[in-house]
Amino acid sequence: MSAEIISVGTELLLGDILNSNAQFLAQQFAELGIPHYFQTVVGDNPERLKSAIAVASNRADLLIFTGGLGPTSDDLTTETIADFFSTPLIEKPEIVEDIAQKFAQRGRQMTDNNRKQALLPEGAQILYNPVGSAPGMIWQPRPNLTILTFPGVPSEMKVMWQQIAVPYLKSQGWGQATIASRTLRFWGISESMLAEKVAMFFDLQNPTVAPYANLGEVKLRISARAASRNAASALIAPVEQELRQITGIDCYGADEDSLASVVGDLLTAAQSTLSIAESCTGGRLGQMITAISGSSTYFMGGIISYDNAVKAALLGVDSQALEQVGAVSAIVAEQMAAGVRARLNTTWGLSITGIAGPGGGTDTKPVGLVYIGLASPEDVTSFEFRFGGSCGVALGANRGRDWVQRVSACSALDQLRRRLLERGV
Amino acid sequence: MSAEIISVGTELLLGDILNSNAQFLAQQFAELGIPHYFQTVVGDNPERLKSAIAVASNRADLLIFTGGLGPTSDDLTTETIADFFSTPLIEKPEIVEDIAQKFAQRGRQMTDNNRKQALLPEGAQILYNPVGSAPGMIWQPRPNLTILTFPGVPSEMKVMWQQIAVPYLKSQGWGQATIASRTLRFWGISESMLAEKVAMFFDLQNPTVAPYANLGEVKLRISARAASRNAASALIAPVEQELRQITGIDCYGADEDSLASVVGDLLTAAQSTLSIAESCTGGRLGQMITAISGSSTYFMGGIISYDNAVKAALLGVDSQALEQVGAVSAIVAEQMAAGVRARLNTTWGLSITGIAGPGGGTDTKPVGLVYIGLASPEDVTSFEFRFGGSCGVALGANRGRDWVQRVSACSALDQLRRRLLERGV
Repeated sequence: MSAEIISVGTELLLGDILNSNAQFLAQQFAELGIPHYFQTVVGDNPERLKSAIAVASNRADLLIFTGGLGPTSDDLTTETIADFFSTPLIEKPEIVEDIAQKFAQRGRQMTDNNRKQALLPEGAQILYNPVGSAPGMIWQPRPNLTILTFPGVPSEMKVMWQQIAVPYLKSQGWGQATIASRTLRFWGISESMLAEKVAMFFDLQNPTVAPYANLGEVKLRISARAASRNAASALIAPVEQELRQITGIDCYGADEDSLASVVGDLLTAAQSTLSIAESCTGGRLGQMITAISGSSTYFMGGIISYDNAVKAALLGVDSQALEQVGAVSAIVAEQMAAGVRARLNTTWGLSITGIAGPGGGTDTKPVGLVYIGLASPEDVTSFEFRFGGSCGVALGANRGRDWVQRVSACSALDQLRRRLLERGV
Repeated sequence: MSAEIISVGTELLLGDILNSNAQFLAQQFAELGIPHYFQTVVGDNPERLKSAIAVASNRADLLIFTGGLGPTSDDLTTETIADFFSTPLIEKPEIVEDIAQKFAQRGRQMTDNNRKQALLPEGAQILYNPVGSAPGMIWQPRPNLTILTFPGVPSEMKVMWQQIAVPYLKSQGWGQATIASRTLRFWGISESMLAEKVAMFFDLQNPTVAPYANLGEVKLRISARAASRNAASALIAPVEQELRQITGIDCYGADEDSLASVVGDLLTAAQSTLSIAESCTGGRLGQMITAISGSSTYFMGGIISYDNAVKAALLGVDSQALEQVGAVSAIVAEQMAAGVRARLNTTWGLSITGIAGPGGGTDTKPVGLVYIGLASPEDVTSFEFRFGGSCGVALGANRGRDWVQRVSACSALDQLRRRLLERGV
């Protein structure tokens, strides 16, 4: 038993819209434990739509169509499905009445175009649309094949799915199981290194474990299938525990956690405060920290010392150091961190100085060279990173720069996180 | 001749991610005039992927695969395609070398897993990945069938598409017609108001004009179809000119322009400098300004005065004003702007103070109330905005906060832009 999505609409093939309906339905299938192996997108064209139906009806038992139910002449989904199964269309007086009533409520007149929306294949039930004019249908054109159609407008599709389709599918024996999942999040380890460490988990069948990587962050997704959400969670818990044990401090959180939210929780627990000094990230670190609601309890503020004069005047960075070793150096990072910590009177001071690119790099100080400074009540330390290389250059001006700024800010948060964890609360 | 997209990834079938790659490629096909009738999504499963290849290779001449090129054991796209066409895999020493070099640059060791990424079907060319470790391929497994593979990471896929795939496809006779388009960008006018002003353009056939709205910004997209890019641009130019004349200062730029890049150009032309003071945006304004490469010529830095003590100590904001009218007020915004301008010794000082939410709002000062201060060589002014209301609340906690922070920073840049334009260079 499996379900397939057929999204109908030339606007999808032109790239005018994102197929958010397919994502919503896919999430719903996962939640309901309905197996789901293929999705197809096809335009408003009867012959091509028929060929998609031929392929899909051959490999799935439940076909979900979205789009092409409107009143205009290029809305062809219902009549094409009926034609494929050689079934005549019949006018449903209930639909005519429903549409006429909805138009009357809005003070409008129903047009002849709308009458087309009242036609369903013989034997099909109406899938009522409580919000718009286009109804869908529920139809079994042959044994072991169920077809549900929905309009393409996401708000209408979702209401119809939740209010009518889900109860119907459950009554037919679909959606008895649940797939729950949990995503562990990592910073400071590459996807391939993490994959080697936890390779033995990738062969598990239930739950499954799979790695993902995105913008410098690596994730492990644990997914379990069971009769209920609780039972699925119970399958996930021991695997999560083992994975956390193996990966240790590289795992910074799960699901909705971010590096900034985790650091915020640690600072709150320790009743500590934080100030920051940013050069090459220009405000990105502060933006990440203050994206967290409630960050005002531990974040006091910071100084964006983009120009060297500001580093000297507002952070007390040694002018000699700026001249002799340059702004992108361990010593300047440390002076920035210590300077902002002293001036804003906080427990911690965190700083970033580096070369975001695309210009400004040299042989000894290439684009992507970044120093992170950390001033604590006990000491001041710094860390060197090289985020650039071929990467920063090849991505072109904006991409490379954005990448260096983003991973620099994340790495600064990660260094503070590691230090807070080592220190204990 | 037509192209098809096969998106490979269980994360798509689970609804974890939106298929933005398919939308990007669909837009590209439209731009290049390449016919495109079907898209398929399939999981990381060799048998199902083979069945998708069987269907697609039967109806299209160009197959574009995204996803499944990574180093882990569930990345199966390349080997499955080779297997489908009964072709052996061969290790490409150039890829091994390229990956080893990329790892060395980042100070990391290449793992055995990565070696798998060097295997391509016999006869396939390497589609180099300038940004990540996973290369793709260009392969003609049989006459009249071309296969291109890309990693699923959107940033990598897009660079490879634009730098390598598009020139290759054009050299092979694909993409001879062109749809060119130009997007005009607006700030400070609503979509419906703009649509009313330029309604008469929406009926044009070639070029077409269509409005879009996204995150507080409104855009007008002008698209023309012609035999060449130059011919399409010639159709667009007069329409753009008319639209700019009608919309005036509300149109801040086109295509890749951002408010920050436009402000940067104006500051550069005027040989002026800028400093900023941020409260509720916490670094977001600085991040937008320093996202622009070369911003160091006009942007000196700023102060993130998240806590009131920092506003007083580092910006010289009057403690009495903070107590009596509160930090979210016109007078504090003005003192912040004047304070940062004086301390960082710049031509302009720009400030933001407000309530980003979701907490902290009151009846008189609701979430979304924001003051922007602007200190010039001549005077200090401020502007009041209300970004919250039903919007901030309806969008839910996190959306609301992010939205208020984003539109606040954009509005600050827009106020400076308008002032710079009024003043002339």
